[in-house]
Amino acid sequence: MPAAAAALSPSAFIDRLVAITGPRGVMTAEGDMAPYLEDWRKLYRGHALAVVRPASTDEVAAIVRLCAGAGVSVVPQGGNTGLVGGAVPDGDGRSILLQLGRMNRVRGIDPIDYSMVVEAGCVLEAVQGAARDAGRKFPLSLGAEGTAQIGGLIATNAGGIHVMRYGMMRDLVLGLEVVLPDGSVLSELTTLRKNNVGYDLKQLFIGAEGTLGIVTAASLKLFPPLRATRTIFFALPSLADGPRLLSLCREFTGDAVESFELIPRQGIDFATAHVPGTVDPLEGRPEWTVLTEISGRSDERLQEDLDHLVEAAFQAGLVTDGTIAQSEAQSKALWLLREAIVEGQRLAPGIQIKHDVSVQVSDMPGFVHAASEAVWRIHPDALINPFGHLGDGNIHFNVTLKAGSTADAVKGVSEIVYRIIDDFGGSISAEHGIGRLKAAAHAARCPKPRADLAARLRKAVDPKGIMNPSVFRPAR
Amino acid sequence: MPAAAAALSPSAFIDRLVAITGPRGVMTAEGDMAPYLEDWRKLYRGHALAVVRPASTDEVAAIVRLCAGAGVSVVPQGGNTGLVGGAVPDGDGRSILLQLGRMNRVRGIDPIDYSMVVEAGCVLEAVQGAARDAGRKFPLSLGAEGTAQIGGLIATNAGGIHVMRYGMMRDLVLGLEVVLPDGSVLSELTTLRKNNVGYDLKQLFIGAEGTLGIVTAASLKLFPPLRATRTIFFALPSLADGPRLLSLCREFTGDAVESFELIPRQGIDFATAHVPGTVDPLEGRPEWTVLTEISGRSDERLQEDLDHLVEAAFQAGLVTDGTIAQSEAQSKALWLLREAIVEGQRLAPGIQIKHDVSVQVSDMPGFVHAASEAVWRIHPDALINPFGHLGDGNIHFNVTLKAGSTADAVKGVSEIVYRIIDDFGGSISAEHGIGRLKAAAHAARCPKPRADLAARLRKAVDPKGIMNPSVFRPAR
Repeated sequence: MPAAAAALSPSAFIDRLVAITGPRGVMTAEGDMAPYLEDWRKLYRGHALAVVRPASTDEVAAIVRLCAGAGVSVVPQGGNTGLVGGAVPDGDGRSILLQLGRMNRVRGIDPIDYSMVVEAGCVLEAVQGAARDAGRKFPLSLGAEGTAQIGGLIATNAGGIHVMRYGMMRDLVLGLEVVLPDGSVLSELTTLRKNNVGYDLKQLFIGAEGTLGIVTAASLKLFPPLRATRTIFFALPSLADGPRLLSLCREFTGDAVESFELIPRQGIDFATAHVPGTVDPLEGRPEWTVLTEISGRSDERLQEDLDHLVEAAFQAGLVTDGTIAQSEAQSKALWLLREAIVEGQRLAPGIQIKHDVSVQVSDMPGFVHAASEAVWRIHPDALINPFGHLGDGNIHFNVTLKAGSTADAVKGVSEIVYRIIDDFGGSISAEHGIGRLKAAAHAARCPKPRADLAARLRKAVDPKGIMNPSVFRPAR
Repeated sequence: MPAAAAALSPSAFIDRLVAITGPRGVMTAEGDMAPYLEDWRKLYRGHALAVVRPASTDEVAAIVRLCAGAGVSVVPQGGNTGLVGGAVPDGDGRSILLQLGRMNRVRGIDPIDYSMVVEAGCVLEAVQGAARDAGRKFPLSLGAEGTAQIGGLIATNAGGIHVMRYGMMRDLVLGLEVVLPDGSVLSELTTLRKNNVGYDLKQLFIGAEGTLGIVTAASLKLFPPLRATRTIFFALPSLADGPRLLSLCREFTGDAVESFELIPRQGIDFATAHVPGTVDPLEGRPEWTVLTEISGRSDERLQEDLDHLVEAAFQAGLVTDGTIAQSEAQSKALWLLREAIVEGQRLAPGIQIKHDVSVQVSDMPGFVHAASEAVWRIHPDALINPFGHLGDGNIHFNVTLKAGSTADAVKGVSEIVYRIIDDFGGSISAEHGIGRLKAAAHAARCPKPRADLAARLRKAVDPKGIMNPSVFRPAR
C-alpha cells in the first residue's frame, strides 16, 4: 500500500482522506481553507492539498499513515494562535493542514486524583472551566486562552502569567497520546505521578512544535482552587531591586506568588496614551513598577502577610510606593493596565519591534540596562519598553523606532538585543517557540552538539521528514 | 585515531586512560575495583577493564572519546546506591566503570535566582546543606541521601518523600552538562526558567540511567526554606479513605502537604516487633494509618489550619483517631516508625518480596485490595505490607512468604502483583528505575510503539551502543 500510495494522484489522495474522515472532515476549496492557512499575525500564508479535520485518534492515525505512504507532509494546527508561524504550511502546497479542533472532548476528570484527560482540540478556557466545575484549578493562563487549544499549547510548551508558580505546560502534563510519523499510536495517557520505566518519551513531544508527532490527547495535573488572592502594584527605586523584591515576596508569603510582572514607565505611557480606560495607579511617574498577584489561605491571613511584606519591603528600601487593590474592580483595573501595554504600543507611532527573551531572574536588571544602552548607542531616539514576566525571567524587550526606519535598521535592533542575550546566556525565545520566524536566529547561535543531537533525534523519530517540515529550519 | 585506537591492546588502552586522568584517576587492581563492581544490595557483581575517576568534564569527554574509538563500553556510577543494578557492569569485563565522585564541586549558588550549579559527584546531603547555608531549600530527600550523588539521582530521576510537593528530580533540574557518546559536550547549564528553543534535550538524559550520555553537572531549582512544619499521624476507617483524606489535607493547607505516607498495620507490627525503640502511636491497632508532614507560614497558623483540618476530617468520617506531634522528639519518633518498616520487614522471618509500584492516587485502595486478594488466593498465609508514598501513588507493595518457599513461588508473587498493576494502568517501577533487575519484566509489558521509539532514540544518540549497554536490556 505505501508503494502504491506513493503514486497516488492528488484527487485519489483526497478521496482516501475523505474515506477516512467522511466529507465534512476534508476541505479543499481555497475559500474554505484560507482561514487555516494564514497565521493570526498575518506574517505567514501558505498552501495545502487539503485542510483535514479528524474526529478521533484513529482517524489521525489513518491520515498520517496515508500521508507517510504518499510522501505528503503534515502540518498540525490547534487554535492557530502561535506567534512564530509554526502552525501554517509553507508555499509549496505539498502538505495537508491537520486541524485538531473537532477532537475537543474532556475524556475524564478525577478531583480526588487532581487530574483530567482531554483531547488536543479542547480550548484552554474550556479546560480551565471543566477543572473549576470539578472544584479544581488548571493553572495555565495566557492572553489567547479563549482560542488556543491544548494540543498546540503542548506542542509549543506554552507559558503565560502563572509560570513562576506552576511551571510551563511541560510541568502540567502527566501523560500524552501521540500519533507518530509512521501512523502508530504512542498511548501513554497515564495519570501516574511517578513512573520510572525508561525514557520519558512524552517529553520529546512537548515543545517539539509538531515535528515529531501529533499530540491527540493529554492527561493533565490539577491543583486545589485558590481561597484568596490580592493584586499589588509596587514602585521600585530601581530595576535592580526587582529580583530582590520578588525574592522577598516569595519568602514572606510561603512561596505563594502567583505572578510578578514588570511594568516600565514607557509601558504605562503607551497604555494610558492610547488605550481608553487605563490609569496610572501611582503618583510621581515611577520609572519601574511591578504588578504582582499573591494568594493565601484566607483574606485575613493574606492581609496580615501583605502587611508584613510591605513593611519589610519598605524597610529594605526595595519599594518607594505601592497600592494594594481593595476590590475586584481595582484588581481588574491594574491587570487592564498590564494587558493594555501591548495594545498601547501597537497603536503608538513608529515601528514596533518585539522580542520574547529570557535571562536568569537575577540577571534581568543587568540585561535590560546593557541591551537598552546598546540600542540607544545606535538609535538615541528609540523608545524601549521592557515588560512582562519578571517572576520567571521572561521579558518582552520591545523597541520603537521612528516611522520610516529601514528594514535593515529593524533587523539590526533584534541583532543587538540577541547579542546581549547571548552575553547573558539567555534565550531568544522564552515562551513563543522557534517555528519559522526564529529558525534562522536560533540556527545562528545553536552550538554544534545541540544542533547535531536535535537533527539526529528528528531523523530517528521522523525518518521520512513529513512532520511540519518548515519548522526549526531556516528558509532557503 | 579512532581506527588506530580500535586496535589498542588492553595495556595501551589503560596507558591512554592514565594519560587523561593521571595515575590516581585509574584503578585496575581487582581489590581496588571490587567495591565499585558490586551494587550495594549485592544482587549484581561485574567486571571492568578499569575503574576510572575523572576530575573534570574535559577528562570525562576525553575518556568517552577514547572508549568510543576503542569500542569499550562505559558504565557510569555515582554513589552506587541504586536498587536495580544499573550502575555496575556485567560480567564480560569489556567496559570501564566511570565513577564521578571526584567531580564534587558546587560551581555556584544564587539565592536571589533560587538556583545552584553543582557537579555530578556532589552528594545529595551536601547539596541540601549548601542550599540551606544560602538560606534556600533543595527539596529532594530520600533514604540514601548521605551517599547518593546528583549525577546518579538525575540519571535515575530519583523520587523520595517530597515528590508530591516538589516533584521528582526531573522537576528540579533547570539545565545539564552532558558528555555525549561521541565525547562531545552538550553544555546547557542554564538557570533559565523559560527557554523554548526547540527540543528540550536535557529531558532525554534525566531517567535514562546512563544509556544516552554522562551527566557531569546540573543547574538545580531552589525554594524558600519552610518556616513551620508539623507531623501528624492519622488512623483511617478504611484504606479507601486515604486518597480522600489526602485531598482534604491539600485543600485545608493551601496545598502545603510535604509528604503523605501510608503505614499499614502489618508495617507497624514488623517495626515494633523487630526494631528497638519503635512504638505504636495509637491505641486499638488500626488497620490503616497515614503519616503526613504539613508546612505553614508560622506555628500559630499551622496549628489553626490543622485544627480545621482535623475537625473536617472527623466530620467527613475520613479518620477515626490521630495524633499531632507536639515536639521535635515526637515527630522524630513517628518518622522512625516509618523508616523502621523496611528494617523490621528485613528482620522478620520468611522470604521478603519487594515491589516499587505506582497507580493513580485515587486507584490505590482498589489496587491494594485486588493485589492482596490475588496473592492470598495462592498464598493464604502470605503477609502483605503495602506502605509508602500514598501522596504520589507510589506504594512499596511488599509480601512475605513463609521460609522455604521456592524461587518459582517468589517469582509468581511478583507476576501476580505486576498483572494487577497492568490492570490498573500502573507502573512496575515508580521511582527505582529499570536497570537490569526489571528489564525483562518491563520488556514483557512495553507496547510496541514505545519499545520501537525507545530503541530508535537509543540508536540515534549512541549509534555504537557503548553507553551502559546492559541497562534496559533483558539478560540473554
